[in-house]
Amino acid sequence: MPLFDLAPEALETYLPQIDEPDDFDAFWSQTLGEARSVDLELRLEQVETGLALVHSYDVTFAGFGGHPIKAWLTRPADVTGPLPAVVQFLGYGGGRGLPVEHLAWANAGYVHLLMDTRGQGSRWGAGGHTGDPAGSGPAVPGYLTRGIGDPAEHYYRRVFTDAVRAVDAVRSLDDVDPTAVAVAGTSQGGGITLAVSGLVPGLRAVMPDVPFLCHYRRATEITGAMPYGEITQYLAVHRGEVERVFRTLSYLDGVSFARRADAPALFSVALMDTTCPPSTVYAAYNNYGARASDVVKDIEVYPFNQHEGGQAHQLTRQIGWLATLP
Amino acid sequence: MPLFDLAPEALETYLPQIDEPDDFDAFWSQTLGEARSVDLELRLEQVETGLALVHSYDVTFAGFGGHPIKAWLTRPADVTGPLPAVVQFLGYGGGRGLPVEHLAWANAGYVHLLMDTRGQGSRWGAGGHTGDPAGSGPAVPGYLTRGIGDPAEHYYRRVFTDAVRAVDAVRSLDDVDPTAVAVAGTSQGGGITLAVSGLVPGLRAVMPDVPFLCHYRRATEITGAMPYGEITQYLAVHRGEVERVFRTLSYLDGVSFARRADAPALFSVALMDTTCPPSTVYAAYNNYGARASDVVKDIEVYPFNQHEGGQAHQLTRQIGWLATLP
Amino acid sequence: MPLFDLAPEALETYLPQIDEPDDFDAFWSQTLGEARSVDLELRLEQVETGLALVHSYDVTFAGFGGHPIKAWLTRPADVTGPLPAVVQFLGYGGGRGLPVEHLAWANAGYVHLLMDTRGQGSRWGAGGHTGDPAGSGPAVPGYLTRGIGDPAEHYYRRVFTDAVRAVDAVRSLDDVDPTAVAVAGTSQGGGITLAVSGLVPGLRAVMPDVPFLCHYRRATEITGAMPYGEITQYLAVHRGEVERVFRTLSYLDGVSFARRADAPALFSVALMDTTCPPSTVYAAYNNYGARASDVVKDIEVYPFNQHEGGQAHQLTRQIGWLATLP
Amino acid sequence: MPLFDLAPEALETYLPQIDEPDDFDAFWSQTLGEARSVDLELRLEQVETGLALVHSYDVTFAGFGGHPIKAWLTRPADVTGPLPAVVQFLGYGGGRGLPVEHLAWANAGYVHLLMDTRGQGSRWGAGGHTGDPAGSGPAVPGYLTRGIGDPAEHYYRRVFTDAVRAVDAVRSLDDVDPTAVAVAGTSQGGGITLAVSGLVPGLRAVMPDVPFLCHYRRATEITGAMPYGEITQYLAVHRGEVERVFRTLSYLDGVSFARRADAPALFSVALMDTTCPPSTVYAAYNNYGARASDVVKDIEVYPFNQHEGGQAHQLTRQIGWLATLP
Amino acid sequence: MPLFDLAPEALETYLPQIDEPDDFDAFWSQTLGEARSVDLELRLEQVETGLALVHSYDVTFAGFGGHPIKAWLTRPADVTGPLPAVVQFLGYGGGRGLPVEHLAWANAGYVHLLMDTRGQGSRWGAGGHTGDPAGSGPAVPGYLTRGIGDPAEHYYRRVFTDAVRAVDAVRSLDDVDPTAVAVAGTSQGGGITLAVSGLVPGLRAVMPDVPFLCHYRRATEITGAMPYGEITQYLAVHRGEVERVFRTLSYLDGVSFARRADAPALFSVALMDTTCPPSTVYAAYNNYGARASDVVKDIEVYPFNQHEGGQAHQLTRQIGWLATLP
Amino acid sequence: MPLFDLAPEALETYLPQIDEPDDFDAFWSQTLGEARSVDLELRLEQVETGLALVHSYDVTFAGFGGHPIKAWLTRPADVTGPLPAVVQFLGYGGGRGLPVEHLAWANAGYVHLLMDTRGQGSRWGAGGHTGDPAGSGPAVPGYLTRGIGDPAEHYYRRVFTDAVRAVDAVRSLDDVDPTAVAVAGTSQGGGITLAVSGLVPGLRAVMPDVPFLCHYRRATEITGAMPYGEITQYLAVHRGEVERVFRTLSYLDGVSFARRADAPALFSVALMDTTCPPSTVYAAYNNYGARASDVVKDIEVYPFNQHEGGQAHQLTRQIGWLATLP
Repeated sequence: MPLFDLAPEALETYLPQIDEPDDFDAFWSQTLGEARSVDLELRLEQVETGLALVHSYDVTFAGFGGHPIKAWLTRPADVTGPLPAVVQFLGYGGGRGLPVEHLAWANAGYVHLLMDTRGQGSRWGAGGHTGDPAGSGPAVPGYLTRGIGDPAEHYYRRVFTDAVRAVDAVRSLDDVDPTAVAVAGTSQGGGITLAVSGLVPGLRAVMPDVPFLCHYRRATEITGAMPYGEITQYLAVHRGEVERVFRTLSYLDGVSFARRADAPALFSVALMDTTCPPSTVYAAYNNYGARASDVVKDIEVYPFNQHEGGQAHQLTRQIGWLATLP
Repeated sequence: MPLFDLAPEALETYLPQIDEPDDFDAFWSQTLGEARSVDLELRLEQVETGLALVHSYDVTFAGFGGHPIKAWLTRPADVTGPLPAVVQFLGYGGGRGLPVEHLAWANAGYVHLLMDTRGQGSRWGAGGHTGDPAGSGPAVPGYLTRGIGDPAEHYYRRVFTDAVRAVDAVRSLDDVDPTAVAVAGTSQGGGITLAVSGLVPGLRAVMPDVPFLCHYRRATEITGAMPYGEITQYLAVHRGEVERVFRTLSYLDGVSFARRADAPALFSVALMDTTCPPSTVYAAYNNYGARASDVVKDIEVYPFNQHEGGQAHQLTRQIGWLATLP
Repeated sequence: MPLFDLAPEALETYLPQIDEPDDFDAFWSQTLGEARSVDLELRLEQVETGLALVHSYDVTFAGFGGHPIKAWLTRPADVTGPLPAVVQFLGYGGGRGLPVEHLAWANAGYVHLLMDTRGQGSRWGAGGHTGDPAGSGPAVPGYLTRGIGDPAEHYYRRVFTDAVRAVDAVRSLDDVDPTAVAVAGTSQGGGITLAVSGLVPGLRAVMPDVPFLCHYRRATEITGAMPYGEITQYLAVHRGEVERVFRTLSYLDGVSFARRADAPALFSVALMDTTCPPSTVYAAYNNYGARASDVVKDIEVYPFNQHEGGQAHQLTRQIGWLATLP
Repeated sequence: MPLFDLAPEALETYLPQIDEPDDFDAFWSQTLGEARSVDLELRLEQVETGLALVHSYDVTFAGFGGHPIKAWLTRPADVTGPLPAVVQFLGYGGGRGLPVEHLAWANAGYVHLLMDTRGQGSRWGAGGHTGDPAGSGPAVPGYLTRGIGDPAEHYYRRVFTDAVRAVDAVRSLDDVDPTAVAVAGTSQGGGITLAVSGLVPGLRAVMPDVPFLCHYRRATEITGAMPYGEITQYLAVHRGEVERVFRTLSYLDGVSFARRADAPALFSVALMDTTCPPSTVYAAYNNYGARASDVVKDIEVYPFNQHEGGQAHQLTRQIGWLATLP
Repeated sequence: MPLFDLAPEALETYLPQIDEPDDFDAFWSQTLGEARSVDLELRLEQVETGLALVHSYDVTFAGFGGHPIKAWLTRPADVTGPLPAVVQFLGYGGGRGLPVEHLAWANAGYVHLLMDTRGQGSRWGAGGHTGDPAGSGPAVPGYLTRGIGDPAEHYYRRVFTDAVRAVDAVRSLDDVDPTAVAVAGTSQGGGITLAVSGLVPGLRAVMPDVPFLCHYRRATEITGAMPYGEITQYLAVHRGEVERVFRTLSYLDGVSFARRADAPALFSVALMDTTCPPSTVYAAYNNYGARASDVVKDIEVYPFNQHEGGQAHQLTRQIGWLATLP
Repeated sequence: MPLFDLAPEALETYLPQIDEPDDFDAFWSQTLGEARSVDLELRLEQVETGLALVHSYDVTFAGFGGHPIKAWLTRPADVTGPLPAVVQFLGYGGGRGLPVEHLAWANAGYVHLLMDTRGQGSRWGAGGHTGDPAGSGPAVPGYLTRGIGDPAEHYYRRVFTDAVRAVDAVRSLDDVDPTAVAVAGTSQGGGITLAVSGLVPGLRAVMPDVPFLCHYRRATEITGAMPYGEITQYLAVHRGEVERVFRTLSYLDGVSFARRADAPALFSVALMDTTCPPSTVYAAYNNYGARASDVVKDIEVYPFNQHEGGQAHQLTRQIGWLATLP
């Protein structure tokens, strides 16, 4: 795939002004308030993995609607805290898999929580274990158009709330330093990371890697690839719902969350990425921290990559960068 | 696509003995009992379509769990009943669309009810309007693995129940002859038709066209195409759940429903159909009416077709065949 | 597929000045004169379809060269005329199929004639029944380059003439109001509709849906998809014939026919349509009625659709719109 | 592509008994009689090619129906005859192109005639220049279903007759030894070669290379690839015409022509060829010369090739083999 | 992808007798003798990774021809040996990447050496760093046909020798228990694992995961997928070299190595794997340890997986299984 | 494929200023000096081809590093020299094949040398017979990234040197006029032709047909197709090597060679060519002869072709054009 989006120089200054609903903050304030009115019911069960250097725990906590959300928590075996932590979110369609897959952050000395994405975890990898008890109106197979008719019913309202509660859960642990919690994720995980960045104050760091879930309208105009293509497919069938669909999505846009963020951030973007086109990533990056002052942010550019982005290079970069933060 | 399944002669006598759970009938008896304990809440609102020869109604009735299910009812404009009726179910991913699309049965003199399939109606055509309020565990995008862990929670338990209630609804109409109700459908609609054939006594006729939802295990072994491929994809991720998955599906197999059917039936099958492979269709056809005696059945074979099957040829054949039934 | 053509705002004012041969009108005047010098030999044989509300007729009439052209005529069963009529043309590769497939216009109270496209009807659907007795020079499989060396021998000269004679045939029927004949069609059918719009005066309405056969040169430059790609493929082999090919096509361009039209028109266009790119459709729409004054025209825009366009939504729109015309 | 047809050992003895119509020989006898009742009107115009070693001629002769057929004749520049000759036929969709492309046979000392295939020559290469004045009934784009309803109207009746007349034309040349004319061709050219082998007595040699146009029924059952797939596509639309279609093709089957052949033959077959599956080639090879005695035949097997077969290896083999014939 | 190879039951007893060259053992004895006559020149440089729990080393050692081969060695940070070790080989086209990617075995308490594959490491992932100084004759892009004309020059002779030397290198480390070295790898890594299993005595365990490089002839006949397809592509061009090619490969066949192995083994196989078809894996598994007695072996079967096989499930299984070995 | 690169008018004046390393000329001067310090060891063995009009010779000569390079030399059988000559280079992945394939230039009266490309000749056609004894660092399968880390080790340094020595070899033949040697080639062969045009003075003519190996950076930005895509793939894995890679390629760029050329040139370009995009071809064409004065050059534009370009039309054009040169 060659370059297909704005020229690299134009991307660096691409600063679209996305429409936001007036009640954006009220919507999320109410949503999180309701979620936090339910007890976290945090449970950790240690699991036997054959790994001597780390301890792994099968975690359950109450997410949106009090629904049980699964996660793996992995931490250095013989270290006492309080420790810094990293909360990580997953790419589209995948699940938390098995503890042996996700060892880097614990090996780097962090308590690491990997949150399952509700209803997903069945398309690739070693599987997810969290259902989504909520149904939806007519929807394209996938997750982007579930509840597309109303932001209150949209799938990602639930997921973003789960993610906020995952941070709450980690912060509540005895051996975690609640002021030292970072969030990270790739693709969908990057989009969820952005949502958390705008919803949760006091994060140590925000690390969205080739993030999904940003600037939906442009995404549908510049790429036909899935999963943004689910929106296109939905609107190709439900021909009269264009305004309604984008209104719903305006409550869920990574660009709007990024504007509200104030923690240090390390993004990545791949210039040949047709899944999460670079202009949608830069839309979030260039708006990141717009409402704060002196926000530390940086973006790693992978000029010849598609959606795989930087992979282990970015992870190594994140480990190094995070260690430098005060 | 060339021939890829059993040879045509072998298909004619292919009679696999699918395992059935002992409580198959109990499961469905209880399911339908619960559904029928809720009032149908049948509502018909006439809609303006610009069509002079027929009247069209936007129908809502209570399906599984009392959930509102939408349908279009179309009937001859100036005829008084009681009329015979055809209840039709839709192919995978489609919705009831618009009344102008489905005129043949009303033109042939029948009251025609076209049932929306809950949660679908967003991948092709003019759209569906029925949500599915039930969520599910981790699932492959699509419908076949929603609730795959437990027959009580499986998506098609709800859909098949909706379909039974659609027949109940039509039979309750003043101008319909309740002894003269036929069911029909193509692909997924054919699979739903088979389910109804085994669950509802006293049907005038059963017309499954290249039916889906039959002999799941063989389907996954003979084809990789979607939507049967959703099962394969699920099991490729959830590697230890093979027995559990096929146990759940055993409550939902068109072959088992076909065994219990006793109404006259007209099937169709396409020999180059990789979506609904011919051996899975013959598995249902050859088992159709196995528990009854002297069941009238016939199958139209399309030797050079893929999943499109007979299309308008089969519809014309159905109109002619149905008119000959006593 | 994302947006790939001109920006939506630019499309609205896109008004290319296509070169027309000086003898365009003479060419067509002579062509139609010759065709009309042959008797229509119109034959209608009623067919048994099992449809009670409409009567269907197997129609044959003499098209270009006096060649027999097939059509289905469907009309309300128990209504006496004179009635308004709709003459419909088919998409590329399809045939008139079977009467049960095309009931909407008759149900809306019109006499409906569905013309077979000569030589086609073997790629999808229920089949066509009209041959094309004329051969051609070397050509790409398909129809667009048959007779490409000379407008007098081009395939679409014959088809457009057949279409004009189809209107003549319908107007000659006793129970049809000859002042109330509309023409319609999707894709290739839309291109034929445009040709008729410029060749036949006094039409009630013109309804080209995502029309094909417009602005050939731009089409080959903006899309590689079939069937416009047949021109590209031909010129990739016959490397020296560029001027000759586009000269031939200049006698057959929907844009030129549109300029000459004066009946009320309802177009449709899909902005993600790579088969009939939106700029080629707008080239015809924006030029439609350019030589007349005060032509009533409108275009329905489907922003997220590919070549499927509006489907039943557009049909419903047409039924409503046509009913409002004086 | 792996092996997909019969096992290699089974291919060697695969001898299907294809049904032949009783009037097969009468049909062809009458066809050729009619063709030969028209003067050949053979014209050769020398063309300037810049090639010093050979002379090239633009050839025209009267084929089926007296239609003008084009060919290139190439011969050694400074040799006087009588010379042996090779008549070659082309693959599907191609044209005779340009004289610089086809020099091997003339360089080997033969008069070489390369016949254009009527109506083709626009899909690849440097183009064809021969039209087909005959039209057809509804047909799949391509050539295999043109005139499929009646052997008298089928496209290949005309092509095979052209090919016979091409041999007649070469034999009529002063500097050609009429007893030393061989025929050759690849794919479609191989199928035409087989037709000539059964229709023209006294050939020096027959060299079908991965021939097409053999055992049509099996071809449609073992492969879905084009161009055999045109038959499948036709029958998928014209669902009731199976018997009629295969009856027409039974007059045009390479297997039946092969049975009637008696000249020495060198075939080739590729075991991974999904376009012309090996069992269809062996069906012709194993039947070749069945009605004669002591026919010299051999087949070159390319075990790892797809439809490209032996390419220059086979051509080199042919040049060597042909030189050894008495 | 459905099932496409032998039926599951037939696979369990599939025991093909692959031809072996008489000098197979002499060939490898000489090859390894030469390699071991060169000093290992083992160098370990600790690298900074930000990982607190493990130490990572950039390893170089002399492989075939004394060429420098790179690897990562990762071991628990604060544990003193002697420790057991796992030597791992990589899949086709990948490189050793970065230390953060491969932490499971060190976390499980092993010294872990991940060997780069010479010349690869540029198609996916985070890259390889080992060149292959040897050239080759004409070859298909890829590695399977480099040096295909002579086993002494074949690419995998070099790679398998590198792998043996990797084991030698690990065994030479002070803190490694040389009697407790296991080998493992997926796909190509599994094929290399098998080679080592037959070439190196005294291994603790052998863990080939969906191994490549087994039963080459059958592989080319049952699948067309890459990389086995490189052989097919080579033979499609070099048409006369079939015997020579398979003779060369007979020195490199995982089946022959497996026969000579005697360490406990845990295989995996995926029944829908078209890249490394199950019959080729079972050919190695069923022959594994054939020349020894009482070899402990087991195979994990993934019935619904393609080439991804068991992924983290298999890794978890390996960690558990290896811990149980005496 | 539609137009995808600069507009045709913009292409005509597209004159990018490619960065050249300061030591470009020194690099090549030293490279060729070293190559010419080794004896050519030219050997010609006549081969029996069955072709009477030409004589064919199996040629070997010492290329880069003294490595043996194969070629076919074909010349008129009965003509005595000195003759003009054409040295031709091959497209990517192909080999010299067999003498019967390449007869046009000898038939036109030239001594024709067709040089094998080292290491290639195994992907299509009748095969190559020249190995490449040099290995490389980690590389993408293919040739473009072999030795990508250092121009001195890059694959095309060797190939271009081979090509220069091929001209040296032809000029050394008794019956060749050394002042009348032209070079030609298509795609990769065109790129090699350009290299020779800038490295060898005194050529009669230069004929690059849709040349590859020009303006690498733009190529990776405007197309994702192979083989330029090998660069993209390499950089997607080796993420930090962008500058190093393009520095290496700057010694091998057809644009830089073209600037240094001064012989008459006939290019071709295809405007829908996504393999060798037209802007990369025009970059070389518009820079061709920039350092000389009054260079004769022309370019044949194929507006509707993809990478196949002009094929036999271009060859015919070349034969005619070359004959007109003084």
